[in-house]
Amino acid sequence: MSTPIKAKAALISVFSKEGLEPLIKKFNDLGITLYSTGGTEKFIKDLGVPVVPVEDVTSYPSILGGRVKTLHPKVFGGILNRQDNDSDVAEMKEYNIPQLDIVIVDLYPFEKTVASGASEQDIVEKIDIGGISLIRAAAKNFKDTLCVSSVDDYEEVLELISTNEGTTTLADRKRFAAKAFNVSSHYDTAIFNYFNEEEVVYKASYTKGKSLRYGENPHQKGTFFGDFDAMFDKLHGKELSYNNLLDVDAAVNLMAEFQNEDPTFAILKHNNACGLAQRDTLHQAYVDALAGDPVSAFGGILISNKEIDKATAEEIHKLFCEVVIAPSYSEEALEILKGKKNRVLLIQKPISLPTDQVRSCLNGVLVQDKDAKTDSLEDLSTVTNNKPTSDELSDLIFASKLCKHTKSNTIVFAKGKQLCASGTGQTSRVDALRQAIDKAVSFGFDLKGAVMASDAFFPFPDCVELADKAGITAVIQPGGSIKDQLSIDYCNEHNLAMVMTGTRHFKH
Amino acid sequence: MSTPIKAKAALISVFSKEGLEPLIKKFNDLGITLYSTGGTEKFIKDLGVPVVPVEDVTSYPSILGGRVKTLHPKVFGGILNRQDNDSDVAEMKEYNIPQLDIVIVDLYPFEKTVASGASEQDIVEKIDIGGISLIRAAAKNFKDTLCVSSVDDYEEVLELISTNEGTTTLADRKRFAAKAFNVSSHYDTAIFNYFNEEEVVYKASYTKGKSLRYGENPHQKGTFFGDFDAMFDKLHGKELSYNNLLDVDAAVNLMAEFQNEDPTFAILKHNNACGLAQRDTLHQAYVDALAGDPVSAFGGILISNKEIDKATAEEIHKLFCEVVIAPSYSEEALEILKGKKNRVLLIQKPISLPTDQVRSCLNGVLVQDKDAKTDSLEDLSTVTNNKPTSDELSDLIFASKLCKHTKSNTIVFAKGKQLCASGTGQTSRVDALRQAIDKAVSFGFDLKGAVMASDAFFPFPDCVELADKAGITAVIQPGGSIKDQLSIDYCNEHNLAMVMTGTRHFKH
Repeated sequence: MSTPIKAKAALISVFSKEGLEPLIKKFNDLGITLYSTGGTEKFIKDLGVPVVPVEDVTSYPSILGGRVKTLHPKVFGGILNRQDNDSDVAEMKEYNIPQLDIVIVDLYPFEKTVASGASEQDIVEKIDIGGISLIRAAAKNFKDTLCVSSVDDYEEVLELISTNEGTTTLADRKRFAAKAFNVSSHYDTAIFNYFNEEEVVYKASYTKGKSLRYGENPHQKGTFFGDFDAMFDKLHGKELSYNNLLDVDAAVNLMAEFQNEDPTFAILKHNNACGLAQRDTLHQAYVDALAGDPVSAFGGILISNKEIDKATAEEIHKLFCEVVIAPSYSEEALEILKGKKNRVLLIQKPISLPTDQVRSCLNGVLVQDKDAKTDSLEDLSTVTNNKPTSDELSDLIFASKLCKHTKSNTIVFAKGKQLCASGTGQTSRVDALRQAIDKAVSFGFDLKGAVMASDAFFPFPDCVELADKAGITAVIQPGGSIKDQLSIDYCNEHNLAMVMTGTRHFKH
Repeated sequence: MSTPIKAKAALISVFSKEGLEPLIKKFNDLGITLYSTGGTEKFIKDLGVPVVPVEDVTSYPSILGGRVKTLHPKVFGGILNRQDNDSDVAEMKEYNIPQLDIVIVDLYPFEKTVASGASEQDIVEKIDIGGISLIRAAAKNFKDTLCVSSVDDYEEVLELISTNEGTTTLADRKRFAAKAFNVSSHYDTAIFNYFNEEEVVYKASYTKGKSLRYGENPHQKGTFFGDFDAMFDKLHGKELSYNNLLDVDAAVNLMAEFQNEDPTFAILKHNNACGLAQRDTLHQAYVDALAGDPVSAFGGILISNKEIDKATAEEIHKLFCEVVIAPSYSEEALEILKGKKNRVLLIQKPISLPTDQVRSCLNGVLVQDKDAKTDSLEDLSTVTNNKPTSDELSDLIFASKLCKHTKSNTIVFAKGKQLCASGTGQTSRVDALRQAIDKAVSFGFDLKGAVMASDAFFPFPDCVELADKAGITAVIQPGGSIKDQLSIDYCNEHNLAMVMTGTRHFKH
């Protein structure tokens, strides 16, 4: 059974004829009989290569405008028969069914048709029935049949056939069977996703994985399934790692909050911002972002919402950083930043990100909408006697955006559109606050007049009390604790302003 | 085109006959002609209902041991013809093709066959070719055909058909077409996953989603796709939320490290342990876990590696906690813990978790092996003149396991198999360390003789210096910094013991 098989006949039925010619000619050289239909048949004929119309085998015409061409027992018998099964062999003779050792099918382009904005009728017409049935039949019978299901594989097949004069091994054919079910499952997932309006299901089919050097740690394998090149032009530097990609993801999501604003610069480490500032010049924004935590910035991910100029590049160049992301770079800036061999330089293209998120959980996955809510001035209700000043208001919004993109529990301090410090990833809110205070103090920030953002409500008034004593004058938080009033009372007694948004921003 | 269609004929070809009888009888009552083949044909005949063998239509026998039965132009023509297309209608007459308005197919049970441990030959035989082709053809032609692709839908179809005397609307048929491509894509994803050994692809197909009240935050929609009931028996309490599920996932992964050990109890918040202890009794393990951070424990997730007894339950009952997980509960313990209406009580079944993980990143997903490496005594190489004592060694392993399941950057302190404090989710390692010291001190821990675990190497010797001054006497870390020697030197000068594992445990 595992003996190699030398092909005698091939059935070829493809939508796109690209790349097919060398295969046809090689098959002809090897004396392999070609069976075909419609456009493919004409293509082969035009190459001057003999071809048997499938209709001659089936004695049945192509009907229903081509909807039914190859769906015939003689064709499927030719593909599905087991050459080591006596009864199958006898039936092949009795019904005069030709053995088809190779099946080459290229499906109707369903996804492209959907993407082109075609009408439902045109899209439905591009649901391939016969072709996918041929692919699946040939793949099922990999013991006897070689199934070629994608134009991407033609070169490999040509080499395989050429090297061994039409002979393939069981291992070859099984490998191509796997590819075939990759194609068919991807195809039907795309069709399902087109049709589905109500079923609560999660289907993903990513076929172009990029193996990473390793996963989150060197002893874990990791792969990225996505179209990095659609989002970024990589200008310079080493391959991105698993952790780099996570950081880049966190960085672009954070910077999306500041897209059409003044020059803004952020520095991230372990998916959290450790520096963020918005200034009149990008250079100043970078300097003030770095001041947020120059220790953590070491080996960090940098992102800007404006073109990186020479002055900024010169500052950045002093820092060891893994990745720089910007919408563009001046020529001089690029020259400077290329000065370190491994430093990754990315141009971020104006592409929108998916609106949902998936992550493993227990024996399945959790899928959710991304947190798409950005708190704006209209969302704020002032709950204290003191109203925030206009400077405080703009800092409150700034801090809230940052808070949304920092791991929970988090407390963020900002002043003059600069991150002073944040407490991140804490099991208790008051610890996040204490941590933020300690960090701000250790990096020399004066919190007098700074604002505080919290990703969730305050369970007790201890947070506003500690914040007040540290110098905080205005607070933004979702509200919703049964003890909200205690925090409000404290703020009123100590002349703090507090606004509530009604929107929690947990991020885990 | 969008006019309702009253069915005149149905093609039925199913693997399992379960639930089919009422449908058959209703079709018969409505005067719908039934076409069928093989076992299904016999089943219908045995019900005393007239049925036309498909072979009578095709004038072609079932061949190749049943591998080719329905793959015939007359069958597919009957399904795929467009009733509003004059040329199609003319061809139907010319070739004497019967109109098939309803197609009911139940596929060969591929996944069950794989799960049963069957041979490759048996598994391959269970790759359905004809049935899936019928399903896809009927779904494609939803304008004219109703496709029923799962036994789960029989009841709905029966109701639909009964209410409207065999008439279905375009909307009905389109909805069933979506279900059909759900079935076909799921089926081929399973086959691909069986065959695939080398293609770098990511395919997921989860068909039973459970909508959660909301996602990570109330303004986000969230769904869990997994088999919760396979992992847990839920004995009591409210529906689990998105964040509960994330915490439960973190909890069971952490506790998996202590499965066959002495009674161990952990308390988690925001996916991180805030308390963990291993003791001779579970009661003491709980008390000492809670002591790790009684503030964070409020609203936390509790997990035990042993049956929860009455004494432990009485202690737990004093705490507001969201979820309790254990392998079992004594009757008295259960009675006590049920005393709070919303408290979720779960029995964890001995089921192994998936070995890979997926999460959204940029415009795709990152897939990786889970961190499956648990540091054990054999992995440790002592790099200092001082060797750890045997008590320190067991604490080092204990702390390392905890470290692995805590968000990066993290530093964990443990003493006598109790978590003293951890710094979690920090952008700099020294901040994680400072945070751990502050927490330990604030909860009254004496760190003299405690050990420290770090999820990654120390970039500078400041960490061991701070730890030493806090009382730490032994350190476990992967090593690998170019400045490792500085940390080692410090330890040697101050009589600390340090072991290296070579294994980093970042977790983001």
